[in-house]
Amino acid sequence: VSRRPLIVVSNRGPISFARAEGGERIARRGAGGLATALRGLLAREEVTWIASAISDEDRALVAETGGLVPEDAGAPCRLRLLAHDPEAYDGFYNVIANPLLWFVQHSLYGLGAQPVLDERFQRAWAGYVAVNNGFAVEVVAALDNAPQAAVFFHDYHLYLAPRVVRDARPDALLAHFVHIPWPQSDGWSVLPVDQRRAVHDGLLANDLVGVHTQRWRRNLVASAADVLGAGRDHDGRVVHRGRTTTITSRPISVDAGEFDALASSAAVLDAEELVVRGRRERLVLRVDRADPSKNIVRGFTAFGLLLDRHPEWHGRVVMLALLDPSREGVPEYDAYRDAIECEAAAVNARHASAGYQPVDLRIVDDFPLSVAGYKQYDVLLVNAVFDGLNLVAKEGPLVNDRAGVLVLSENAGAHEELGEWALTVNPFDVLGQAEALHAALSMDAGERERRADALANQVRTHDVGHWIDSLLDDLAGVSA
Amino acid sequence: VSRRPLIVVSNRGPISFARAEGGERIARRGAGGLATALRGLLAREEVTWIASAISDEDRALVAETGGLVPEDAGAPCRLRLLAHDPEAYDGFYNVIANPLLWFVQHSLYGLGAQPVLDERFQRAWAGYVAVNNGFAVEVVAALDNAPQAAVFFHDYHLYLAPRVVRDARPDALLAHFVHIPWPQSDGWSVLPVDQRRAVHDGLLANDLVGVHTQRWRRNLVASAADVLGAGRDHDGRVVHRGRTTTITSRPISVDAGEFDALASSAAVLDAEELVVRGRRERLVLRVDRADPSKNIVRGFTAFGLLLDRHPEWHGRVVMLALLDPSREGVPEYDAYRDAIECEAAAVNARHASAGYQPVDLRIVDDFPLSVAGYKQYDVLLVNAVFDGLNLVAKEGPLVNDRAGVLVLSENAGAHEELGEWALTVNPFDVLGQAEALHAALSMDAGERERRADALANQVRTHDVGHWIDSLLDDLAGVSA
Repeated sequence: VSRRPLIVVSNRGPISFARAEGGERIARRGAGGLATALRGLLAREEVTWIASAISDEDRALVAETGGLVPEDAGAPCRLRLLAHDPEAYDGFYNVIANPLLWFVQHSLYGLGAQPVLDERFQRAWAGYVAVNNGFAVEVVAALDNAPQAAVFFHDYHLYLAPRVVRDARPDALLAHFVHIPWPQSDGWSVLPVDQRRAVHDGLLANDLVGVHTQRWRRNLVASAADVLGAGRDHDGRVVHRGRTTTITSRPISVDAGEFDALASSAAVLDAEELVVRGRRERLVLRVDRADPSKNIVRGFTAFGLLLDRHPEWHGRVVMLALLDPSREGVPEYDAYRDAIECEAAAVNARHASAGYQPVDLRIVDDFPLSVAGYKQYDVLLVNAVFDGLNLVAKEGPLVNDRAGVLVLSENAGAHEELGEWALTVNPFDVLGQAEALHAALSMDAGERERRADALANQVRTHDVGHWIDSLLDDLAGVSA
Repeated sequence: VSRRPLIVVSNRGPISFARAEGGERIARRGAGGLATALRGLLAREEVTWIASAISDEDRALVAETGGLVPEDAGAPCRLRLLAHDPEAYDGFYNVIANPLLWFVQHSLYGLGAQPVLDERFQRAWAGYVAVNNGFAVEVVAALDNAPQAAVFFHDYHLYLAPRVVRDARPDALLAHFVHIPWPQSDGWSVLPVDQRRAVHDGLLANDLVGVHTQRWRRNLVASAADVLGAGRDHDGRVVHRGRTTTITSRPISVDAGEFDALASSAAVLDAEELVVRGRRERLVLRVDRADPSKNIVRGFTAFGLLLDRHPEWHGRVVMLALLDPSREGVPEYDAYRDAIECEAAAVNARHASAGYQPVDLRIVDDFPLSVAGYKQYDVLLVNAVFDGLNLVAKEGPLVNDRAGVLVLSENAGAHEELGEWALTVNPFDVLGQAEALHAALSMDAGERERRADALANQVRTHDVGHWIDSLLDDLAGVSA
């Protein structure tokens, strides 16, 4: 397949700039999973990346250079940063993208009380429109430099930009990947009709839209029909405003080589010593951002129920919860963190005894410790309320050394690919989760090994390189 | 069409018994809309009604008679009351039906925190199963007395009974009406897989299932496919376990004659005098149960925004909110009532002036006052989060004397039938609701009359008799 140059567009870029103590500008690699996943792409294709200037130093660089990051500044590809109007960006990022679109797409709102879409929402939506327009202008300029390039938008920050680019460049090849769940149309009804239509109309301005699962793909095809009246052609493509959009289901994955190297790194080996010293006979692990979509509180409740109902595990099993702090200062997230700490303390108060603390909660950004936990778990709990994919469910089995069992939410996108080798749980059913933990802890070694081997093999043979190749093939198919 | 005798099955019956002060047993007519709606049926068909014994006096009667209500006891038809095991009934009613199924079907849960399905849920589900089994046993006995009878189940309390009856009497004619919204399959994923399947499998044991709108009908057909893998035949019927179920959309309605009589009754005329004395130039009305699905708090927020953004209405418009107390003592409902009172007070604190209190909140069960409000409103606000149908949107226009404007949520089932003559609002968009109130208050008289006449005419020509006839025709069609 002949490849085209790529224009990657995402809110967060592959690097961000800061000032070192000595006063010189330094580049930091982006923390998000997206930058990691796309690193493979940079090695394979000629890429121009367009992203927001986020840090003060990013904005200083834009003021100096007009946005193009100099070649010697540490970017892994040609990189253009956009310094948006601060007020527009605040509404775009802190009101519309998070929490509104995040909460809508993860079904987190209790609709009796939240959201309340008022004048603040209207102003923020104007910011979302303005930031998307700003991205579109840059994309059009980049296309003028490379008319054969394919544009690859990412995620829920950029639903409107593709329509603006399409109107300016009707023949451009546009693709978009949505990394979070796509809800059904009743879920989208939380947005007023204009915004709901704009989101769908913008996304369908692309030639190709990728999501992680068949489930989100079906939801998108159906909501396009419900919200816009979009039809389908004989090949299953969505038809809207006289054009077709191919919707493809391609689960993202991890870099197996990177995790193999990490697993034997000094930092992970050091952390692993701590984990081994702290562990009992069995270790239940969870690794997550501290986000309500991850279902951390119910996970502790379930672990407490396990100890209530199966007291034989008392003193023999510890639950280690490694939680990345997330969106601190946002009221919903601060309240959720309080609830996490409260439930962990409640389980410990009920079940601790001399020298035994059943829940070990650590709210800290420590990736080597997470990888050490991956190696050492007997049970990995991934009980997300909803999750676009969930990479923890892939990273853990890849490096685990103990034939550990994966307990996996039916609402995590990864369940479609890995469910047959996991124990499936409903995220709201804490009793079912408690019994799944018991079944996992009690499983005989042969069964555990069979499942763990199958999981590791699936991830290894379907790593992030496979994901990128599949998407590039889809793109080539669409452009043919 | 030749009619069969009917066996009506619902949790709440057409009457319930109490002890008068003098010690004698008295019958009270059921307050629910269902009993009212089915009254027309009793006049037309030979009906046996099976319902739960709910009051202490109901249970005393069952102890005396075995359940069959004596002919002279005031029932409008042959009536059999079932005295369920109290613990089973408590789980059935107070845990599974309300809040769980009510909240799931109205999309009210904030899924990050609620529900938590634990041992209490499991016990309550066993109660739901037991009560449904109890109903099924009575239905089978009634069918043995009248083998040609059609069975007509009602609502979300009785999802499991039809399957039990079907297994015992494969050739029986079974119908079910669901009076609340039917969510999409992602909404149903709140129930663990066994319960989710049991609900769908039970409902599809019927030959006919009725809902209020095409929207709920589409959702049911789709969720039956997603949850059970049910297919469809060439006539659009759902195919499951080798049988077909017809899903029909029949919006319930009101008794026009009853409302005409009420409107000129002494009680309503007395109440109307009060309303007229309290009103300003314009009256915005809402009439609801105090339930989070009704979206009362956001309605006050929108009214406050109206006064903020259009100060010309200050002193000229009052919002009268007539709220039936609901499920008092249930924590979610007590908290919601607090939120209602708090937001009403906040709007009054911001906008009241000498002699002018913009929000008149009355949490009281006073039906004549509601009808008086219906006659007097200039704008009727129905902004439900989700609602199976919403009869207020039909009752108001039927008796209104002022060419009042209906502002109607797109998520109320009634919107499918009445939306073209209403001003449509998104229930989460308080700014949109404020502007719709302004548009309604500012609308010229000709436009108001055209819309109000069309609404009244639609309700009058599609009253509850029309609903019953349509369903009986559907039933005859299914049995042919």
